Amino acid sequence: MMETMGDLRRTNMCGELSKNDIGKEVVLMGWVQKRRSLGGLIFADLRDITGLIQIVFDTEVNKESFEKAEGLRSEFVIAVRGKVLERESKNLEMATGEIEVYIEELKILDTAETPPIYIKDDDDVSEQMRLKYRFLDLRKPHMQNNLILRSKTSKVIRDFLYENNFNEIETPFLTKPTPEGARDYLVPSRVNPGKFYALPQSPQLFKQLLMVSGMNRYFQIVRCFRDEDLRANRQPEFTQVDIEMSFVDVEDVISINENLIQKIFKEVKNVDIELPIKRMSYQTAMDKYGSDKPDLRFGYELANITEIFKNSEFNAFKSTYDSKGVIKCVKIDSSSDDFSKKGISKLEKFVKTYGAKGLAWMKYENGAIDSPIAKFLSEDEQNQIISALELKEKDIVFIVADKESVVNTALGALRIEIAHDKNLIDESKYELVWITDFPLFEYDDEEERYVAKHHPFTAPVDEDIDKLETNPQGVRAKAYDIVINGDEIGGGSIRITNRALQNRMFRALGFTDEEANEKFGFLLEAFKYGVPPHGGIAYGLDRFMMLLTESDNIRDVIAFPKTQSATCLMTEAPTHATEKQLKELGIEVTE
Amino acid sequence: MMETMGDLRRTNMCGELSKNDIGKEVVLMGWVQKRRSLGGLIFADLRDITGLIQIVFDTEVNKESFEKAEGLRSEFVIAVRGKVLERESKNLEMATGEIEVYIEELKILDTAETPPIYIKDDDDVSEQMRLKYRFLDLRKPHMQNNLILRSKTSKVIRDFLYENNFNEIETPFLTKPTPEGARDYLVPSRVNPGKFYALPQSPQLFKQLLMVSGMNRYFQIVRCFRDEDLRANRQPEFTQVDIEMSFVDVEDVISINENLIQKIFKEVKNVDIELPIKRMSYQTAMDKYGSDKPDLRFGYELANITEIFKNSEFNAFKSTYDSKGVIKCVKIDSSSDDFSKKGISKLEKFVKTYGAKGLAWMKYENGAIDSPIAKFLSEDEQNQIISALELKEKDIVFIVADKESVVNTALGALRIEIAHDKNLIDESKYELVWITDFPLFEYDDEEERYVAKHHPFTAPVDEDIDKLETNPQGVRAKAYDIVINGDEIGGGSIRITNRALQNRMFRALGFTDEEANEKFGFLLEAFKYGVPPHGGIAYGLDRFMMLLTESDNIRDVIAFPKTQSATCLMTEAPTHATEKQLKELGIEVTE
Repeated sequence: MMETMGDLRRTNMCGELSKNDIGKEVVLMGWVQKRRSLGGLIFADLRDITGLIQIVFDTEVNKESFEKAEGLRSEFVIAVRGKVLERESKNLEMATGEIEVYIEELKILDTAETPPIYIKDDDDVSEQMRLKYRFLDLRKPHMQNNLILRSKTSKVIRDFLYENNFNEIETPFLTKPTPEGARDYLVPSRVNPGKFYALPQSPQLFKQLLMVSGMNRYFQIVRCFRDEDLRANRQPEFTQVDIEMSFVDVEDVISINENLIQKIFKEVKNVDIELPIKRMSYQTAMDKYGSDKPDLRFGYELANITEIFKNSEFNAFKSTYDSKGVIKCVKIDSSSDDFSKKGISKLEKFVKTYGAKGLAWMKYENGAIDSPIAKFLSEDEQNQIISALELKEKDIVFIVADKESVVNTALGALRIEIAHDKNLIDESKYELVWITDFPLFEYDDEEERYVAKHHPFTAPVDEDIDKLETNPQGVRAKAYDIVINGDEIGGGSIRITNRALQNRMFRALGFTDEEANEKFGFLLEAFKYGVPPHGGIAYGLDRFMMLLTESDNIRDVIAFPKTQSATCLMTEAPTHATEKQLKELGIEVTE
Repeated sequence: MMETMGDLRRTNMCGELSKNDIGKEVVLMGWVQKRRSLGGLIFADLRDITGLIQIVFDTEVNKESFEKAEGLRSEFVIAVRGKVLERESKNLEMATGEIEVYIEELKILDTAETPPIYIKDDDDVSEQMRLKYRFLDLRKPHMQNNLILRSKTSKVIRDFLYENNFNEIETPFLTKPTPEGARDYLVPSRVNPGKFYALPQSPQLFKQLLMVSGMNRYFQIVRCFRDEDLRANRQPEFTQVDIEMSFVDVEDVISINENLIQKIFKEVKNVDIELPIKRMSYQTAMDKYGSDKPDLRFGYELANITEIFKNSEFNAFKSTYDSKGVIKCVKIDSSSDDFSKKGISKLEKFVKTYGAKGLAWMKYENGAIDSPIAKFLSEDEQNQIISALELKEKDIVFIVADKESVVNTALGALRIEIAHDKNLIDESKYELVWITDFPLFEYDDEEERYVAKHHPFTAPVDEDIDKLETNPQGVRAKAYDIVINGDEIGGGSIRITNRALQNRMFRALGFTDEEANEKFGFLLEAFKYGVPPHGGIAYGLDRFMMLLTESDNIRDVIAFPKTQSATCLMTEAPTHATEKQLKELGIEVTE
């Protein structure tokens, strides 16, 4: 009963037909969305990637087709030839709702069993089912639109970069482990038994080598891999828009990337981004928002009130002060009535998940502070708080006292949580900011040494170079992140290109010359032969696409994503290997 | 002594300056190609990705720069500011040879040791050195041009496909082993101990699933992986231009791809390709050229003379006839004087490397056959040969008798070898041909069963479907390869989309339903829910680039290629893994 297309060839896409096509004979092909009989006619909605159109079978037009159409079910694949007519009862909710196609000829190209998930956007089936039947899930219009928009975004990016004399250059996937990076995915080599390739965490070293080789401006839209423990919105493989330029400093990289970002928003979202994009130092971001990726769509800046408590009788704050911790707070204006005891206790639980020991609060009501801790604070302290925070009637303040990193993380998350609760975030708004002047190093408690905050090739800010040995934590990096609506969408830096400086950097990281050589040998070798100043940036395309498609799930912008346990529910990858394969690779599975 | 760019920013690229720029002040940045002193001046050639320009240091223009310039050596990285002047002694071999730049300001951005390989195209250093110092090798103009052309080619391909409503959709790299494919690269999963991902040999199944999901037209320029034993011009990772379309048959796919190919040649090489491209059946290609990727830039078609020897007294030929082998030959016109005994004996050695047991030859001189085997052949046989091959004075014929596959391989290679020796191949010519009507199956002696010649989803030609069970070797496939100058550049097929037919196919391949399910389960599952007719093609981009850049080494079109033992001489990948890594992955290296 299944037929071939024969000589029929599609003349139009369903969703592109309009009143202008009335009277035309068209050939359409696609899937039956639904079929119903009414008044002696058979109606069906035919679906392709562009949308739906109503088709009509009428015995008076073609009896054979009408009879065949009685057998149509949802998701059958058909080819039809017919004439576009104006619809009597127009459906203005449908893009093609003013017309319909009366069918002369019907071919059933394939039948279909009842699909296990509905093909509609608001199907509330479990994500597990969506992933198992991804080939059906991708029939949903919003999923198709996400993939189309992703394809378009890549094109916009490539067009811009080609226009600006970048070349797309492919770098290896079977390569060397990344020193100082996250955990690598390894690939056993059969030809070199006992040895392993690593899948790239980024083409960082290769793009720098391309600069050494004089390729001048490089980019690549490329898959990268990190074998890290997966959290929500993290995938083992992700796509990076990777860019590197020679003979540039920070301003040059930022400038061209602002134009790129502006173009993406304009062409993909028709949103105008004003240039230059705002800048904020890492320190300011941490101070004011508790985060190096602040969401600037709303206020709720943090305030540091540590100094008020240097002689406090209140033990919790005083001991924080004495142990060099900080006491910071966030003020929510005119909202004290919105926070019940129960609500506050929920927020306290929330900040505890970020490591805070507790959450103090103060309401300012009837010209006085109302708070469980008020009784421990002197009048002077209370007045200082009122004045420092410029408290007004019905303001409420949330306070965390702890070591700085805990306070920032907890209050940074709290301000966002409260903004969400209060429905304060304008989802149609895009707030972009460059975060600059990152610290070059951060201290790794586990390794008991400084590690590079970005990577060991990031150049220090010129005026901080002298502090490399004497005050490493005071050295700022020529690094920049682009943050949009509280998400880090991209980041990069100017690289160290001076061998002497690179060696000082390695020493600051605690490497002996030998270790540095073992880890970065070929880069150091390359750096002997004339290196141009260079720098670049990398964007996380998946995150960028979440933003552009307004998705809150990374799996909605990837055709075939993995679960949080790094499996593919559709193909059932990963799977067991055969004994023969393992033997050829010279490896064994333990336990 | 190394300086920063300071406020200097490049205004022009070296190779783009011309007489139109005379009088302008320019800032250039790049590498010193060479430096020489003459008549109180210092001359240097400055190089960037666009080419070279002569720069001049003159004490009268700027004494400080002149003095600094005395320290310049090859491959130093510099920034210069100066004025473009007309050159007195023009160098017309250099694109910018009519001008030079007198330097006001020089900054030495980096020094360089003497590089271990010369930065020039005709440096005849070993390939090993080139690969070890790839960052220097890529400074050579022809290597940079290859990468630029590759980048441009990708752009041309993408532009064409976007214009034709294809979407580029990314498919997974960490996926399931390919059933019925070559050897996979495996990736141990840490999160799922004892299990492995496979790197994709091609996105075949994913692109078919995208058609099932209604994505209509898909493409991707994507890395693929095969862990096969490496030969010349084969790399463990290679780039595929992967294309799939719905609601099409063979002619639709061929037609759009002819337009794509035409556009690539026009935009990348400025060569006009006439459409439609020639077609040849697989059988004709094998008969006439001994190969399914015939080089049509020259003649030397093979002739089958088996029947002449059905009653031969010449044992070698008669026994070939009796054992159902074939006797084929290639005639080289008017060339008998070009082939000495020694030359012929070299050719015999050559065909033996292709499995032939020997190479017979006949010269036609003074109206008679002159050949070591002439005495074994009857006059009638000799006359039949003369007439069948239309022998003319000074023709020479080379004959191989063996089973058909050996004869075809040996003579197919021989005709190319002779054409090369005689310098008969016009390297500026492009001969394109579609090879069609491939057999659907080929017999695998090792597995003792039929295997799919392309892959198990390739559709049979409609009129051959009935032969699937009764005469599998007689079934032709809806498959097509595009062959250019004797290289298979791409290939594809229309896929089976009918479940019943797919099951017959699996049975013909010797799979039980259970085996088929285990190997292709999720595809078969997908095929239950309405599948559009679809088909596609995949191009080997590396091979295509070899053709477009006129390279005879695949490593000259890849930035960071691997050796034939699948190692990277620059990074020294693959390397040993640490105990910690192996333990986390739950694997052990044996032996």
